[in-house]
Amino acid sequence: MRRMTLYARRPVRTGRLEAFSDGVMAIAITLLVLDLRVPARDQLRGESLLHALGRGWPNYFAYAITFAVIGIMWVNHHALLDRCERATRKMLMANLFLLSIVAALPFTTALFAEYVRDPGWNGHVAAAVYSATMFAAAVAFNLLARMALGRTDLSRFAVGLAVYSGATVLAFVSAPATLALHAVIAIYYAFDQLPVGESADA
Amino acid sequence: MRRMTLYARRPVRTGRLEAFSDGVMAIAITLLVLDLRVPARDQLRGESLLHALGRGWPNYFAYAITFAVIGIMWVNHHALLDRCERATRKMLMANLFLLSIVAALPFTTALFAEYVRDPGWNGHVAAAVYSATMFAAAVAFNLLARMALGRTDLSRFAVGLAVYSGATVLAFVSAPATLALHAVIAIYYAFDQLPVGESADA
Amino acid sequence: MRRMTLYARRPVRTGRLEAFSDGVMAIAITLLVLDLRVPARDQLRGESLLHALGRGWPNYFAYAITFAVIGIMWVNHHALLDRCERATRKMLMANLFLLSIVAALPFTTALFAEYVRDPGWNGHVAAAVYSATMFAAAVAFNLLARMALGRTDLSRFAVGLAVYSGATVLAFVSAPATLALHAVIAIYYAFDQLPVGESADA
Amino acid sequence: MRRMTLYARRPVRTGRLEAFSDGVMAIAITLLVLDLRVPARDQLRGESLLHALGRGWPNYFAYAITFAVIGIMWVNHHALLDRCERATRKMLMANLFLLSIVAALPFTTALFAEYVRDPGWNGHVAAAVYSATMFAAAVAFNLLARMALGRTDLSRFAVGLAVYSGATVLAFVSAPATLALHAVIAIYYAFDQLPVGESADA
Repeated sequence: MRRMTLYARRPVRTGRLEAFSDGVMAIAITLLVLDLRVPARDQLRGESLLHALGRGWPNYFAYAITFAVIGIMWVNHHALLDRCERATRKMLMANLFLLSIVAALPFTTALFAEYVRDPGWNGHVAAAVYSATMFAAAVAFNLLARMALGRTDLSRFAVGLAVYSGATVLAFVSAPATLALHAVIAIYYAFDQLPVGESADA
Repeated sequence: MRRMTLYARRPVRTGRLEAFSDGVMAIAITLLVLDLRVPARDQLRGESLLHALGRGWPNYFAYAITFAVIGIMWVNHHALLDRCERATRKMLMANLFLLSIVAALPFTTALFAEYVRDPGWNGHVAAAVYSATMFAAAVAFNLLARMALGRTDLSRFAVGLAVYSGATVLAFVSAPATLALHAVIAIYYAFDQLPVGESADA
Repeated sequence: MRRMTLYARRPVRTGRLEAFSDGVMAIAITLLVLDLRVPARDQLRGESLLHALGRGWPNYFAYAITFAVIGIMWVNHHALLDRCERATRKMLMANLFLLSIVAALPFTTALFAEYVRDPGWNGHVAAAVYSATMFAAAVAFNLLARMALGRTDLSRFAVGLAVYSGATVLAFVSAPATLALHAVIAIYYAFDQLPVGESADA
Repeated sequence: MRRMTLYARRPVRTGRLEAFSDGVMAIAITLLVLDLRVPARDQLRGESLLHALGRGWPNYFAYAITFAVIGIMWVNHHALLDRCERATRKMLMANLFLLSIVAALPFTTALFAEYVRDPGWNGHVAAAVYSATMFAAAVAFNLLARMALGRTDLSRFAVGLAVYSGATVLAFVSAPATLALHAVIAIYYAFDQLPVGESADA
């Protein structure tokens, strides 16, 4: 009965954790394309293709934003795990939690794109679901980063949490404004990489 | 004609086996999202989006459970192959058998979610198909683990087999209760990692 | 202008070739699940779920066969590239050709499953398309193997070509018999690994 | 607060960048198959399967062309990153931009296949969207290559830009001719690997 520790009770190397995470993120980011729908020829009913494609702008816009969010999350995930040699079972579970949210993003993105132009409650609900999922992703990344770095002072992530809870509140005011806010956040994260108050060590 | 052994008759390194398995599991886990359907705007018929989303709870619940099951299976697969340097052709085939079941989980998950609220035989059938697939996955993992570790005393896996055959029986009593049981099993496996009767040998 | 050889004119390491091939094969094998369709609750029209699922047997059967074929092709691809340190540009192109056929298998599999019970010409056409695709895959693998091993005596592959051209002919006699033949071929390849006339040289 | 540089401000190793890019390209290339549609048995309405499949020729043709384009892009991406040890954050972002276009190709390919036979403006629009996306991919690859190689003389890529802008113009003359031009470009890139004016160094 000895030596039967099949399960990872001790920290394991992060190589396959990275490979699996890369896989899930790469698939989730690529599945976003499934919501760019080709207008069927026999359903145009006299409308021009250009016009039909034009009506799909929320889909293209939401595609670009979520693609950027997942891509940037991947860059940061990459940078985070580069600093770890080994992952604990707790980290594996926190990572699974993060991935379960990332994998759901094609759904919440499609939902937001479908309802962003709905001026009533449905638009608010869709915008809030999208923003709340991003908030959950920020929480999960935060959790993983705390475990990986063994520290609790991560003011930069606190910013992420604040911004995404703000977006969730804004959802109940205006769905299109919420979409615009998510675009601004993605652009900010793409260009900025200096944590608040950090000195340029290393 | 000499040296024409193209085929792997001798054990091969596990690196690409892991990469391929990671790929299939990552894709299967991410394809689960395709069953989270966005209610089309023109098919709501006066129902609120919130209510329409609410009716989809079995889909979200089944998504979360199957995501956890595949994720935990990946963690254990990882831990198992970490102990092997080389894989025999038999192991490659057992692994393919396991992957063929994992890849089918998005189908059985969608089936269960669609019929879990059906109080008649259809609900029982869907719950039984889901549970039986999980049972088959446990058998396949068991097979692979025996080959990889070269031992037959794997009481922990026997537990898996017992639990999933129990779930298959429960399916004929109540589909929702079966769904709840699968949630409990997933949570148990996520938190527990000490095999029954095992001593802490490193 | 010197040193601008961005393009791979000299052989490159096979690592990323393997990674890309693993990715495409893992995705193609997992996309097969998209043809296992869940019967919608509101379209059963009094038929029991068990019966509706039972009518889908060609889909489950075709899923299992194609899964086995891609899986075994992956095992052999693995064994083949294990013997190469470097890949030429020609090999990269032959590999792309092989992958383009593997990636199309979910389509031909779905086509075969949809029409295998059609007793007329449509059944024959679907069976022939499926068999011809398998023949093309065998040709592509053959091409790649010749380039990788630098030899032309590969009687074993000739067997594959003969068998799949036989299946293509059989398609015009009976579609169900063709499906059965593909099952037999897959089982044969899964268990047999000794090339005809080969001596056991290591 | 020191040492909190979670984010990649310094160049990182290219290993995971390659893995993630391989993943996205492998998925995008394989998702192309989702546009090869199986004609449903109950919708043939007396048409033979062979004839129904024959009508789908633009789909098969567009599948083959885009598969070749992504495949060749992968080969060149491979050759490009083989020359880099480390990637800067700017390169990660340029790579994400490239991947966001590659991931959208299954959409533009399906669009082109659906409308290539439309003799009116819709055919021109679909051909132009497809060509413009290829142009954008060439721009993105150009950007990435400049960053990776630290040089600006890349006449070969300039050729790519010229050819794809030509295709975009041709789209407004004839959609089928544009499809044929893309086929020719893909074949050219598959066989030719000598940059214009390059001497055969190393």
